[in-house]
Amino acid sequence: MKVVLALSGGLDSSTLCGYYLDKGYEVIPVTFNYGAKHNRYENEACIAVARHFGLSAPVLLDLKFIRELFRSDLLLSGSAVPEGHYTDQSMAATVVPARNLIFASIVAGYADSIDAEVISLGVHGGDHHIYPDCRPAFVSSLNTSVMLATDGKVRVDAPFLYYTKGEILRMGMALPTVRVPYEMTRTCYKDQLLSCGKCGSCVERLEAFAELGVTDPIKYAV
Amino acid sequence: MKVVLALSGGLDSSTLCGYYLDKGYEVIPVTFNYGAKHNRYENEACIAVARHFGLSAPVLLDLKFIRELFRSDLLLSGSAVPEGHYTDQSMAATVVPARNLIFASIVAGYADSIDAEVISLGVHGGDHHIYPDCRPAFVSSLNTSVMLATDGKVRVDAPFLYYTKGEILRMGMALPTVRVPYEMTRTCYKDQLLSCGKCGSCVERLEAFAELGVTDPIKYAV
Repeated sequence: MKVVLALSGGLDSSTLCGYYLDKGYEVIPVTFNYGAKHNRYENEACIAVARHFGLSAPVLLDLKFIRELFRSDLLLSGSAVPEGHYTDQSMAATVVPARNLIFASIVAGYADSIDAEVISLGVHGGDHHIYPDCRPAFVSSLNTSVMLATDGKVRVDAPFLYYTKGEILRMGMALPTVRVPYEMTRTCYKDQLLSCGKCGSCVERLEAFAELGVTDPIKYAV
Repeated sequence: MKVVLALSGGLDSSTLCGYYLDKGYEVIPVTFNYGAKHNRYENEACIAVARHFGLSAPVLLDLKFIRELFRSDLLLSGSAVPEGHYTDQSMAATVVPARNLIFASIVAGYADSIDAEVISLGVHGGDHHIYPDCRPAFVSSLNTSVMLATDGKVRVDAPFLYYTKGEILRMGMALPTVRVPYEMTRTCYKDQLLSCGKCGSCVERLEAFAELGVTDPIKYAV
């Protein structure tokens, strides 16, 4: 089985990559640059993670139209990324409109072009509150749209859809045949070399490690 | 009401543009360059059509990942575009995988960014046989996906979904307050200045004009 997955280099998608490799899938990683503040650090992380797994460098998909035309504080064109927990109202400003729909559509077309049967997204339960295109109803509808658009050739998989970030991490650390290189991953939303430890994305990651009683192996600015 | 529509400069999308202007909608045209053989002529046509309607030049969305990575004879990277009627098996080679899904997803994210409530596609009945992402079941699922992805802010409209090209043309020529500039439109799939008159797209267009007993105002190579 051949799966194309969006590998951002974060904790979720890196675990997702390990999950499929552990199952024996052929994994084709792709990654997106869309003008997010953290893209350049993310892109470096995903290349390192792919190399660790013995995969070729992810196909880089440059979505400059998002950078130039879309409205979101996650983008370089937007206001500062808010700090604090994801449940805070302010994090809603980091929504990039229809981002997962756009990512999945492109990945689906690419998968069809290279005869891959599955595309996968690392969406998980912690994203549901803020991000409409991470919710189960959306993912279900997306799967139908992708299958209809590709005449049944490509389907959408999202194995972490009901996992918390802590559960993803626990599963990733227990994969029987694969080690996920968490020390190479990058989760922070900010435009700085060391992860901030304060944005919603960092806070959620640190909570996941704390939940398991494990020290996060990456360096933080604070 | 504000609608973002993909204006290719072809007969269908130009009529679609006139349809919304006639209804009093604010129309924001966008157009795609994705490495199709006919893109440069299409792009010129859509600018002319937009100008005729008094609209600003369409936002050009450059999807170079399709050009570089996707497989289709419609692309510059593919084999020659087949000639003859759309129902011929050979026309299936002109499918660009998940094209409408990708187009609609991007347009939906852009619409959400500029507070437009509707996105519209010029898909019609004549496309159903060959193109899976032009079929009613797909468009219905796409609408659900777009609405869920944007938290109900954006919906998909496809008023020509059950029209033949002849019916689109008849409707476009009878719009009460708007004239659709068919002499500026471009339908041919080939990489040449004058439309070929032989590819599936040209054949279907010529049949639509013949059905109405009207002469197609554009010049053909044959």
